[in-house]
Amino acid sequence: MAAGRILVDQNVLDGYGHVSARHDRDPSRYLMTRSLAPELVTAADIMEYDLESNPVDARGRAMFIERFIHGEIYKGRPDVKAVVHCHSPSVIPFGVTGVPLRPLYHMSAFIWEGVPVFDIRDAMGGMTDMLVRSPAIGHALARTLGGRAVALMRGHGAVIVGASLPVAVFRSVYLEMNAKLQAQAMAQSANIRYLEPEEARRAEASIAGTLGRPWELWKRKALGK
Amino acid sequence: MAAGRILVDQNVLDGYGHVSARHDRDPSRYLMTRSLAPELVTAADIMEYDLESNPVDARGRAMFIERFIHGEIYKGRPDVKAVVHCHSPSVIPFGVTGVPLRPLYHMSAFIWEGVPVFDIRDAMGGMTDMLVRSPAIGHALARTLGGRAVALMRGHGAVIVGASLPVAVFRSVYLEMNAKLQAQAMAQSANIRYLEPEEARRAEASIAGTLGRPWELWKRKALGK
Amino acid sequence: MAAGRILVDQNVLDGYGHVSARHDRDPSRYLMTRSLAPELVTAADIMEYDLESNPVDARGRAMFIERFIHGEIYKGRPDVKAVVHCHSPSVIPFGVTGVPLRPLYHMSAFIWEGVPVFDIRDAMGGMTDMLVRSPAIGHALARTLGGRAVALMRGHGAVIVGASLPVAVFRSVYLEMNAKLQAQAMAQSANIRYLEPEEARRAEASIAGTLGRPWELWKRKALGK
Amino acid sequence: MAAGRILVDQNVLDGYGHVSARHDRDPSRYLMTRSLAPELVTAADIMEYDLESNPVDARGRAMFIERFIHGEIYKGRPDVKAVVHCHSPSVIPFGVTGVPLRPLYHMSAFIWEGVPVFDIRDAMGGMTDMLVRSPAIGHALARTLGGRAVALMRGHGAVIVGASLPVAVFRSVYLEMNAKLQAQAMAQSANIRYLEPEEARRAEASIAGTLGRPWELWKRKALGK
Repeated sequence: MAAGRILVDQNVLDGYGHVSARHDRDPSRYLMTRSLAPELVTAADIMEYDLESNPVDARGRAMFIERFIHGEIYKGRPDVKAVVHCHSPSVIPFGVTGVPLRPLYHMSAFIWEGVPVFDIRDAMGGMTDMLVRSPAIGHALARTLGGRAVALMRGHGAVIVGASLPVAVFRSVYLEMNAKLQAQAMAQSANIRYLEPEEARRAEASIAGTLGRPWELWKRKALGK
Repeated sequence: MAAGRILVDQNVLDGYGHVSARHDRDPSRYLMTRSLAPELVTAADIMEYDLESNPVDARGRAMFIERFIHGEIYKGRPDVKAVVHCHSPSVIPFGVTGVPLRPLYHMSAFIWEGVPVFDIRDAMGGMTDMLVRSPAIGHALARTLGGRAVALMRGHGAVIVGASLPVAVFRSVYLEMNAKLQAQAMAQSANIRYLEPEEARRAEASIAGTLGRPWELWKRKALGK
Repeated sequence: MAAGRILVDQNVLDGYGHVSARHDRDPSRYLMTRSLAPELVTAADIMEYDLESNPVDARGRAMFIERFIHGEIYKGRPDVKAVVHCHSPSVIPFGVTGVPLRPLYHMSAFIWEGVPVFDIRDAMGGMTDMLVRSPAIGHALARTLGGRAVALMRGHGAVIVGASLPVAVFRSVYLEMNAKLQAQAMAQSANIRYLEPEEARRAEASIAGTLGRPWELWKRKALGK
Repeated sequence: MAAGRILVDQNVLDGYGHVSARHDRDPSRYLMTRSLAPELVTAADIMEYDLESNPVDARGRAMFIERFIHGEIYKGRPDVKAVVHCHSPSVIPFGVTGVPLRPLYHMSAFIWEGVPVFDIRDAMGGMTDMLVRSPAIGHALARTLGGRAVALMRGHGAVIVGASLPVAVFRSVYLEMNAKLQAQAMAQSANIRYLEPEEARRAEASIAGTLGRPWELWKRKALGK
């Protein structure tokens, strides 16, 4: 799956994190690699899951503990065709400080509906190992995400969804970028002119039409390695 | 066109952004690639436009939505032979905070006349999709730029002009550098000794004579990949 | 020894720093390379030391001045099988400001017991050359470390221990990451939600089970160069 | 000359900056490449100068405008055998804010005598093009440097000297590192524990004995490209 390698190449994923896609013929299934660093993945590593995140044909392959992130989101969001879970570095500080991420860059307009923070301690009412290791936690995360594009996970990372793999990958790259730029802008001044919701909605629609351009580039760079 | 690849190699461009050059025999025309990531460009991708940004011979090739940035600047600035539009990361915070970019590094002396910020919301009197998608917006941006070397575009990026491709490319690289260094200096102290206009004017003139040195290096590195 | 190369590849070591492992059949001995940049090491460069840090069979090979860091820790910590000494950049500021490193990222949960700072000036009661060049200084450092995973060394770097080489390497990578993220979070806000000790203990245990995933990746990347 | 390539590889030099060495048999001469980006240099590009910075045998090769930095320092400092002039990014903010660089890292102990800032505007009593383009300016810079290891040049860069090429190169790398770490430490806290002069003197002496280790590594990496 090229998506994982692209995200490694773009510094969104490292040895951890995962990307999934809803099955294109059976919307009650999704595809994700076995538990493996994204850079090492080959076609034989792709597994199929139902929306309860049970493997269709495990053949002994190790599964990601946190596959419930994916299954629970697909269950409640028919519009979502791809999910990225990452530990993207610049977003982690926003998850622990409670400073809201807001779009200040037209490429990152897709966060105009806000970026909620899923705090597993509050959501599950106590101490956990921080991992989304059950359908219940996955469901709580999906509820925090709601109809939005992105949710942060406190002390952990983020989940990003999209209507296609390229959209979810694009959003993952430009979420990281917005977080980095917003941190720099906040260091310069308390007065930041963010995108207005109306600007963001329009920018998002326009930029959606150009996704093929970076996608081709990223794919070629990531797979050419 | 080597310029695009150099700017990718120097982290000024990514999958987005574009470089153009005025036609060297017909000043009422300019050259720019079809809509494509700069890294993927080959000679066959170069298109010719008139100053209204109409293609001379499109042959079905996709055009950049924002080609009007280029056409409208060439129209009003006979001295300009090359234009770069980029999303250079360190300049974006300056575009949204209103903190003025000022030269603190002799290599970046070319911004001594100031770096205006084009706010599309103010200029067009309302909400847009943030893109310079019409001659009218391009014209407004060109007016904000005036006779200067650089203008920022709020929440979007920058436009950089020059009397030649190497000059515009050099300025793009050292604009990013000045933004980065100014942000660091501002984090250290409120008292920054910037270049005086007279120092900057002289430094710019002296450094203009040395452009061949980095240009040869950048070209070799970018094309050797 | 792959560990050294992995840490260079992950930007934890540069031309300086060293990794050791306790001998797997004789716990009163440890293995470390001769004095050499980690990237240049081959099997022939590995030397054996007793817990006083005397070489078993030096054969004229140059030794690291600071080998006492390793020997003195192995002496007092039977649970420790591997030791990393590094100049990891993001942790150095924490060593000189006295700002405590705390886990804000589940991957870095292993520092939940706190990260003490070894100040050689205080510990040795006066001026030194900053190096752990004697058993006495090594012993003082081991005492500061106590039963914990990590100690910083003021104006110098850090020492990281683990129950295996992959654990010590993993901790070195994610110590640097936590330091970087904590500095960014502190720049954003004074209110940071760190991992609770109970969350951290559980997260550390869960993540311990996944170490093979990045280890395989890092090894392949570092050795594939 | 390997030194230039090493410094490019270590991000101290880019298309600009230069390294020189005093002639090893004739102390009244020094060697420096013709005006060329350091990465492109070959043996045929090395020129010889007297201490007035007149070329011994120019053969039409272009000279660096700022060669007087080198000649004037060699003239007054018989102990200096190598000089680096660079635009090392992290030091430039310190040159314009007046915040003193101080050693907080034992590898950077060599700045314990202080890092003066040469402000060409003050030194020359007025506006210049910021370049050390004459013996008089070079002499003023050498006076600011005095007997120290490093001087910053306001809005421009730095000059670093050493008793050998490896020393000057080592200092250039770890000057940049100290500047970066000090900026980070200052962002965290106003209370920074710097090295005491006595610690720094001793650390510098001890580390001097280990220079061969990074030098071998850097040379191999830079020349292996």
